[in-house]
Amino acid sequence: MSTSSTPRRRGSERTLELLDVTLALAEEVGYRGLTVEAIARRAGVGKHTIYRRWPTIADLLLDALNHVWSSELNYRSQGAIRADLREQFLRSSYALSHAPLGPIYRAVIAAAQSDESLRGAIHSRFLKTVEESTLERISLAQQQGQLKSDADLAAVVEVLVGSLYYRWLLTDRAIDEGAVDGLIGMFMDAYGESGV
Amino acid sequence: MSTSSTPRRRGSERTLELLDVTLALAEEVGYRGLTVEAIARRAGVGKHTIYRRWPTIADLLLDALNHVWSSELNYRSQGAIRADLREQFLRSSYALSHAPLGPIYRAVIAAAQSDESLRGAIHSRFLKTVEESTLERISLAQQQGQLKSDADLAAVVEVLVGSLYYRWLLTDRAIDEGAVDGLIGMFMDAYGESGV
Repeated sequence: MSTSSTPRRRGSERTLELLDVTLALAEEVGYRGLTVEAIARRAGVGKHTIYRRWPTIADLLLDALNHVWSSELNYRSQGAIRADLREQFLRSSYALSHAPLGPIYRAVIAAAQSDESLRGAIHSRFLKTVEESTLERISLAQQQGQLKSDADLAAVVEVLVGSLYYRWLLTDRAIDEGAVDGLIGMFMDAYGESGV
Repeated sequence: MSTSSTPRRRGSERTLELLDVTLALAEEVGYRGLTVEAIARRAGVGKHTIYRRWPTIADLLLDALNHVWSSELNYRSQGAIRADLREQFLRSSYALSHAPLGPIYRAVIAAAQSDESLRGAIHSRFLKTVEESTLERISLAQQQGQLKSDADLAAVVEVLVGSLYYRWLLTDRAIDEGAVDGLIGMFMDAYGESGV
């Protein structure tokens, strides 16, 4: 069955193309202006192809954001945990503050405030990935002896992932190095092994 | 000048009445339905009385939320810091999840995502107060020897105040005891004096 992988590969390529088209179009017209019709037209697929996989346009857009986030924003190093977290959080903060991710994501979050299922989708299709990769990264540091062996890291991953949203969503201040260092400082003061 | 305090007192009473009317009306018609006309009519004042003090309806509403927050949600005890933070955060989380504060505040936050000056007003008219009272409460605990004397508390107050918004704004999960305990646990692991 040497041909059996071809349709699957084509399916996966088509998915990536749809995610790219969705993000490009969202950047052009904004979240509010985005339609399944326009995405389908530009990607050269039928609307049913989209609806079969993504029940709502928000689901599709969140998968697109997740695709960018996980390919561009994953932890890039396995060195000193403090420096790696710092680099990662500064890079994420930059992405939040710039196109394409920032403005589109912000608009989705605004829409989600009157739509609980969309808040659930933001988490399940996007932030869950961020929480998991963060927990994986700090768990590795714990195994390497950089973090205290008895620290319950799963209990605090939400604080690491979530804290900087406060500044982004609820103030007009930038997420600067001071904000990032405050968060990481508290985490390391709590769980860093001395000398790390 | 024994009468000089009367106009001032009346002014202050009128301010409180306006804040109450604003909150009551916001609860009835929602943030989007709120107008200065309707608030002025119900409070029996002219619109200019409102505009003189609050440039926008959002400024007025945020002062109203701040009034409720600071009178009902301030730290109530000066005992053990872990227990006081826990009680305070659980009470704040309850307020976020219920009327009148929750739905109105959520709608303001949604509107602020396309309005940077409104994000600034949310902070300056509302969250700044929360940050200050939190910093004051943990600084007291530090003076009492419950928190490490060399901890830079000002650098982490945003983490304390801000972390739980993540769950409220970006997931469909409730802010439960586990979330509160995760945050306070990390703070106390970082800065609690042993035995506290």
